[in-house]
Amino acid sequence: MEDIQSYPDFRNIEIQRVGIKDLHLPFYILEKEGGSQGVLANINLSVNLSQNFKGTHLSRFVEILNKWRKKCISSLELERILKETKEKLITKEANIYLKFKYFIKKQAPLSKSESILDYDCEFIGFLNKSNYRFVLGVSVPITALCPCSKVISRFGAHNQRGFIHARVEFSKGFLWIEDLVNLLEEQGSSPVYPLLKRADEKHLTERAYQNAKFVEDILRDAILVLRKNKKILWFQIECEDFESIHNHSTFAYQEEYLRRKNNLKKQ
Amino acid sequence: MEDIQSYPDFRNIEIQRVGIKDLHLPFYILEKEGGSQGVLANINLSVNLSQNFKGTHLSRFVEILNKWRKKCISSLELERILKETKEKLITKEANIYLKFKYFIKKQAPLSKSESILDYDCEFIGFLNKSNYRFVLGVSVPITALCPCSKVISRFGAHNQRGFIHARVEFSKGFLWIEDLVNLLEEQGSSPVYPLLKRADEKHLTERAYQNAKFVEDILRDAILVLRKNKKILWFQIECEDFESIHNHSTFAYQEEYLRRKNNLKKQ
Amino acid sequence: MEDIQSYPDFRNIEIQRVGIKDLHLPFYILEKEGGSQGVLANINLSVNLSQNFKGTHLSRFVEILNKWRKKCISSLELERILKETKEKLITKEANIYLKFKYFIKKQAPLSKSESILDYDCEFIGFLNKSNYRFVLGVSVPITALCPCSKVISRFGAHNQRGFIHARVEFSKGFLWIEDLVNLLEEQGSSPVYPLLKRADEKHLTERAYQNAKFVEDILRDAILVLRKNKKILWFQIECEDFESIHNHSTFAYQEEYLRRKNNLKKQ
Amino acid sequence: MEDIQSYPDFRNIEIQRVGIKDLHLPFYILEKEGGSQGVLANINLSVNLSQNFKGTHLSRFVEILNKWRKKCISSLELERILKETKEKLITKEANIYLKFKYFIKKQAPLSKSESILDYDCEFIGFLNKSNYRFVLGVSVPITALCPCSKVISRFGAHNQRGFIHARVEFSKGFLWIEDLVNLLEEQGSSPVYPLLKRADEKHLTERAYQNAKFVEDILRDAILVLRKNKKILWFQIECEDFESIHNHSTFAYQEEYLRRKNNLKKQ
Repeated sequence: MEDIQSYPDFRNIEIQRVGIKDLHLPFYILEKEGGSQGVLANINLSVNLSQNFKGTHLSRFVEILNKWRKKCISSLELERILKETKEKLITKEANIYLKFKYFIKKQAPLSKSESILDYDCEFIGFLNKSNYRFVLGVSVPITALCPCSKVISRFGAHNQRGFIHARVEFSKGFLWIEDLVNLLEEQGSSPVYPLLKRADEKHLTERAYQNAKFVEDILRDAILVLRKNKKILWFQIECEDFESIHNHSTFAYQEEYLRRKNNLKKQ
Repeated sequence: MEDIQSYPDFRNIEIQRVGIKDLHLPFYILEKEGGSQGVLANINLSVNLSQNFKGTHLSRFVEILNKWRKKCISSLELERILKETKEKLITKEANIYLKFKYFIKKQAPLSKSESILDYDCEFIGFLNKSNYRFVLGVSVPITALCPCSKVISRFGAHNQRGFIHARVEFSKGFLWIEDLVNLLEEQGSSPVYPLLKRADEKHLTERAYQNAKFVEDILRDAILVLRKNKKILWFQIECEDFESIHNHSTFAYQEEYLRRKNNLKKQ
Repeated sequence: MEDIQSYPDFRNIEIQRVGIKDLHLPFYILEKEGGSQGVLANINLSVNLSQNFKGTHLSRFVEILNKWRKKCISSLELERILKETKEKLITKEANIYLKFKYFIKKQAPLSKSESILDYDCEFIGFLNKSNYRFVLGVSVPITALCPCSKVISRFGAHNQRGFIHARVEFSKGFLWIEDLVNLLEEQGSSPVYPLLKRADEKHLTERAYQNAKFVEDILRDAILVLRKNKKILWFQIECEDFESIHNHSTFAYQEEYLRRKNNLKKQ
Repeated sequence: MEDIQSYPDFRNIEIQRVGIKDLHLPFYILEKEGGSQGVLANINLSVNLSQNFKGTHLSRFVEILNKWRKKCISSLELERILKETKEKLITKEANIYLKFKYFIKKQAPLSKSESILDYDCEFIGFLNKSNYRFVLGVSVPITALCPCSKVISRFGAHNQRGFIHARVEFSKGFLWIEDLVNLLEEQGSSPVYPLLKRADEKHLTERAYQNAKFVEDILRDAILVLRKNKKILWFQIECEDFESIHNHSTFAYQEEYLRRKNNLKKQ
């Protein structure tokens, strides 16, 4: 049967990325407190394509990924997936993006009621000839209470759900999702919880009121804690507040190269 | 050229709805204060299909709709579109759903700063042999401030953006989008605005604090004003709060037949 | 601490549904071939609210659901969740909606290459005083090839990804997700697979070409198999094709009460 | 009334972007064939924030944008909006993103039936001290027919809706949305149309079959035409096919600096 993909191509264009998108597979991820957690990933896997060939063999991407389904994945395993992809497809580069929800146990501040909260996370891996890089992304819901509204009003202050979206690249070693979430969660006016008793609700309402923060404050405080973490080489962070007095959002954004120079390639 | 759609069908199944979905076209809509407003509609148009035929001629739907593009539409024009669709397709029923954003001028409460706010709206039309029915849908953003949080806390109260999604059927005559929005907007703890000066922000923060409402309260108050409106025959309403202390929403839902009995067919 | 929710209410309105929305939790679901599968559910849980009370205690919903996390759920367990919700909230009715992705093993038709395909599924439970009802929903991706395009063209025929979205209510007993998916998947021009070798691609391309079907044909054939299944009391089905020659979709819709009369309440 | 935003800040962090997101406003855009078209934009407007100040005055963004509503906007007007934003907010940089649907008239290839097709477009503007840059983005739906499926199968070939998403930066002068769309639309196996008669459907089915293209082919052909256009300084392009035989997509991506060196800042 003919293999059209392997035909020569005469347009003389090396393609930067060719691959598959929106494939879904289940994996496991190690939890900080021991054990592992099943996650359901939306996957995007791609390679570069030499100017010599007409096409890529995309079924091989699905084949490689299926071997890892229901297995534990972290930065190391993504590197192995990318290596195998590079070898099987005979390319110079391979990239992977995984998006998934990850659950972390939360204890309500006073009642200690336990529940679990879902965080949208990303694992991003880049492999070229000489270099492997890994980026961890998390989206952390928080409460944000407006300092301006608080100061000018006789009582109350508008507040809303916000998100801290962060992507960080770190050096060899490990950064637990739990630790990164924890770091960022503290930078809102207050964390959010799935399960709160009345005593907890009082506590959090008062905490947020005493800890009023603009989206700019949340971003700056998050930048300070990220800069302090010696493992982090690069970060990109966006804070977003779903304003309760508007039908639009406010946001603040920052990208910093702390301990590395080269650019992170865009998806 | 063969017309496969007109072939006889022997499965003996009359299909309730066949049509097109997610077609986009621009129309105009009359504004209450005079003039008209260009809107961009996502359209869903369908008919029933007799058991005698294999298929529907879907290009005719697009043809009919294109004749109305950039024209003014309201309940009356939708009825004409449905009539033409029924005739051209030789069917007993035709249904249309239009979703679009509609802008309404807003004046900030104290500074009187003017801006416009977008509301997601729907026009829904049902035409069968003897009867035409029209439903208007609006989604109204509001601020909702939690009465529980207010009472138990020494200061502050969690609040958040919420939405009142309502669909109403009314008798012959007219109900302005502006009037329905107005009616519902007043039922939140406070309305939202795109443009607010500091004096306005103070005013709204205090208003929301003094007007604490659960999602249940907002629903009940909205039901009361809808029941009072003599034109309204049927309504469906859902209030939803994007809780600022949680990562999930709360909601309350009601459907009432005020002055009619028969069921509204589901999309 | 005051319990505002339990305050009396004087508006004299019984609310049909009050609850939480978009809460995420992991559960397990029994697989037909034995064992179970971890799923990640988006949950909507609600009750009616008596006219006597101002509010509902929404934290109890989260508490009840958290007891079931990481446990096996099916129709029976949902009934127990609803019973407990009714008791704890002292209401007459409780309703639950779960949406989740469920994976089923697929073997490519000729190469027998194995992979898993994700299906969007729903579990819906309704409990009132005397009656419990359970609805299973599945969304099945398929290939649809246009009979008109095939007959009028000298070669080729436009085809596209389509979906069969079905919700079925069945009598006491069990209907495996796998069985419902299987039943519907056969009604497209061809099924879809995550992993296909060249021989499979040839097989499926030819199969689809020889099995040309309008969205109306797919709907009718699906209706025939659903009607034949003795367990099914009610169904709602929508077929949708993402037309490859248009930027809009075509769809066909049917709802049938096979062995029961009463209405399914809308969400 | 206190102006908290103007308070000094001691964290010594200049913020790269602070602004508003998901604000909706109507504008007009000049059409190539004369006249103008009303569009509905989703807007994101931001500035940098000096390390000296605690916050930004976000209401001014809304104020500035509201002055332009229902007016004609193009690259020039965006530059004026950014200049005013920079001046009013006393910052060094300002950025704007507008997303909107834009309609272009289409004539069916044989019947000449006329209809209009919607394209998702973007206007992106960057202004710093010395430099203004403008980027135009378009998403063009096409039909893509698989060369492998065609060659290996005795009849038929799988095909699907695909999209060419392109962002281009061009030098002083003008590039009509219509011209960029036209350029790219020709690179699929065939264009798509809202309204097709049977003769057109035959024509397009056969054209796509005779013009089989992988996602890699579509990307390379699009790159060739973009490179040839002397006005284009930089482009980013992604082709995506919603595979009709899979439940995932394939994609190919390229970014090229043709006549400029500096990086496009990420959103």
